[in-house]
Amino acid sequence: MFSPLIDELMSSLRCLPGVGPKSAQRMALHLLERDREGAERLAQSLHKAVEGVGRCKSCRTLTEQDFCGICNNARRDSSIICVVETPADVLAIEQAGTYQGKYFVLLGHLSPIDGIGPEDIGIDQLINLLQQATANAEPIKEIILATNPTVEGEATAYYISERAKHHNVLVSRIAHGVPLGGELEFIDGGTLAHAFSSRRSF
Amino acid sequence: MFSPLIDELMSSLRCLPGVGPKSAQRMALHLLERDREGAERLAQSLHKAVEGVGRCKSCRTLTEQDFCGICNNARRDSSIICVVETPADVLAIEQAGTYQGKYFVLLGHLSPIDGIGPEDIGIDQLINLLQQATANAEPIKEIILATNPTVEGEATAYYISERAKHHNVLVSRIAHGVPLGGELEFIDGGTLAHAFSSRRSF
Ligand SMILES: [Zn+2]
Ligand SMILES: [Zn+2]
Repeated sequence: MFSPLIDELMSSLRCLPGVGPKSAQRMALHLLERDREGAERLAQSLHKAVEGVGRCKSCRTLTEQDFCGICNNARRDSSIICVVETPADVLAIEQAGTYQGKYFVLLGHLSPIDGIGPEDIGIDQLINLLQQATANAEPIKEIILATNPTVEGEATAYYISERAKHHNVLVSRIAHGVPLGGELEFIDGGTLAHAFSSRRSF
Repeated sequence: MFSPLIDELMSSLRCLPGVGPKSAQRMALHLLERDREGAERLAQSLHKAVEGVGRCKSCRTLTEQDFCGICNNARRDSSIICVVETPADVLAIEQAGTYQGKYFVLLGHLSPIDGIGPEDIGIDQLINLLQQATANAEPIKEIILATNPTVEGEATAYYISERAKHHNVLVSRIAHGVPLGGELEFIDGGTLAHAFSSRRSF
């Protein structure tokens, strides 16, 4: 209905989560009518992020550097690793403000139905980290499993605990102060802090 | 909190209407974790649209061509012009499916507070169209004012009617009242009052 370039922009905007045809139309017209500078800036940011952002070589979180800010921070306790599904979960835990250890970001969870196995979410890399740390005489003492309390998140936590238990490390699961079926990134900081302090040995 | 390129992407996404910090975060992580192809396509579409999309030389709607599809359509009735505020209004009227004339798209409305005067919304160009049409012996017979029923839309409609009345053209305003299929109890008081004062004999 609109001219080809505008129709194409509307269709491209649909890749954004939560954006249907009506929102895409509103966004495209808003940008073209009133904020071309913002649109061009967004185009550049998208391009730069797609080109530049990879994964932290240690914790697998999204970053354009070799190692992320947390992995690079010498004041964080390297003997504890908290395993989460996404970078948004790291942010939520950081905002709760009590956790001082490091992270391991799966960027997903086990999901046989979608063909996502242990190798796709970096489990071998996590086990390697354990072995390397031990070899360097700075062993990791605890792995805190903070995957989502969903079926897939629980299965992923269970799988990791089974793999890790051969490596002389305490494996714990955050407490169920987090409501079942909820997603970590939307939980308030107090609940998250409580969930951390109530963690039990897995 | 995230790495610089990711933070920049989140901030750039805020130029989209209705996108707050939480949505921007969700969008940025979704694209980087799961749809980099979509993100790159969106970057290209934004860039091409910003570079390529201008205004129809006749009706001022957004298009990358000299004249838009409707102005180029010889089967549309050139003797009637419907004046609307935005390209989205054109789409809504086209979808209603009964209007056969052409359009004039203000891309805005008069708003002295924001410094938007007649020249910013193309009123001189509209009056020129009237004069040109008369000079070409294909006079415009009617201008239908379909600006929004807001204070600014009404003021804009009134201003255009004052300017146009010196040019031997019928100027009309679309009817306002209770929408078809709407339920009275959910209609706001202003609309209801207007519907009563504009009632017609049955
Ligand atoms: Zn890292
Ligand atoms: Zn046109």
